[in-house]
Amino acid sequence: MTAPSPTTPSGTSALDTVLDYHRAWTSGDIDRAMSRVADDIVCHAPGGDLIGKDAYRGFLADFAPALTGLTDIASLADDQHVTLFYYPHTAATSTAPAAECFTVRDGVIVENLLVFDRLSFAPPTEA
Amino acid sequence: MTAPSPTTPSGTSALDTVLDYHRAWTSGDIDRAMSRVADDIVCHAPGGDLIGKDAYRGFLADFAPALTGLTDIASLADDQHVTLFYYPHTAATSTAPAAECFTVRDGVIVENLLVFDRLSFAPPTEA
Repeated sequence: MTAPSPTTPSGTSALDTVLDYHRAWTSGDIDRAMSRVADDIVCHAPGGDLIGKDAYRGFLADFAPALTGLTDIASLADDQHVTLFYYPHTAATSTAPAAECFTVRDGVIVENLLVFDRLSFAPPTEA
Repeated sequence: MTAPSPTTPSGTSALDTVLDYHRAWTSGDIDRAMSRVADDIVCHAPGGDLIGKDAYRGFLADFAPALTGLTDIASLADDQHVTLFYYPHTAATSTAPAAECFTVRDGVIVENLLVFDRLSFAPPTEA
């Protein structure tokens, strides 16, 4: 899983797909972000799984307005997987990282393993 | 940051260094794990930073005995960075992932950005 990211038959690498998705939603363009996501996406998020594009869109659309800024840390990729680490800035924190491990197939994101510390983003009473 | 992981002058790649560290501590060999860690390591962990090898060793030695198993998910690398995603198994959970973004310099780990959801690993009252 350490090879450089070749392009798929569509000419777009897994990294390109994920970075476009990432730039889109973090700039508030949920529609463009979702164009990079498979209908049957599975997202493993803290506290539960999101199954399917509608659930995922709802999750993203809920969080995106809270984003006030972004600090990217790292992006690594092979032909099917991309890992991103970044600091989402919110009213609560700009120093708590998020990590995502994407699986890309046929040019779209089919799985996202999303890791962040809920306690750092919201008071414990909201958990 | 998507190139394959070349070896350092010491002949050991960043990925090799981190995987040896990872296998060591997850099998309970804290000494071997710490041989891969720089004296001035900085680890950004949920809830606070750990500065220096002694603090980091203490953190690792505290958690390691709670580990009952491990499911590796992904490991990606370039020449200086390695990202790992895995499920640590504990009495609390075996389905909450951990993500780590390592920086390796001169054959040792100099920085670790560690991401996990504290609520998934312990009751909120312990946070």
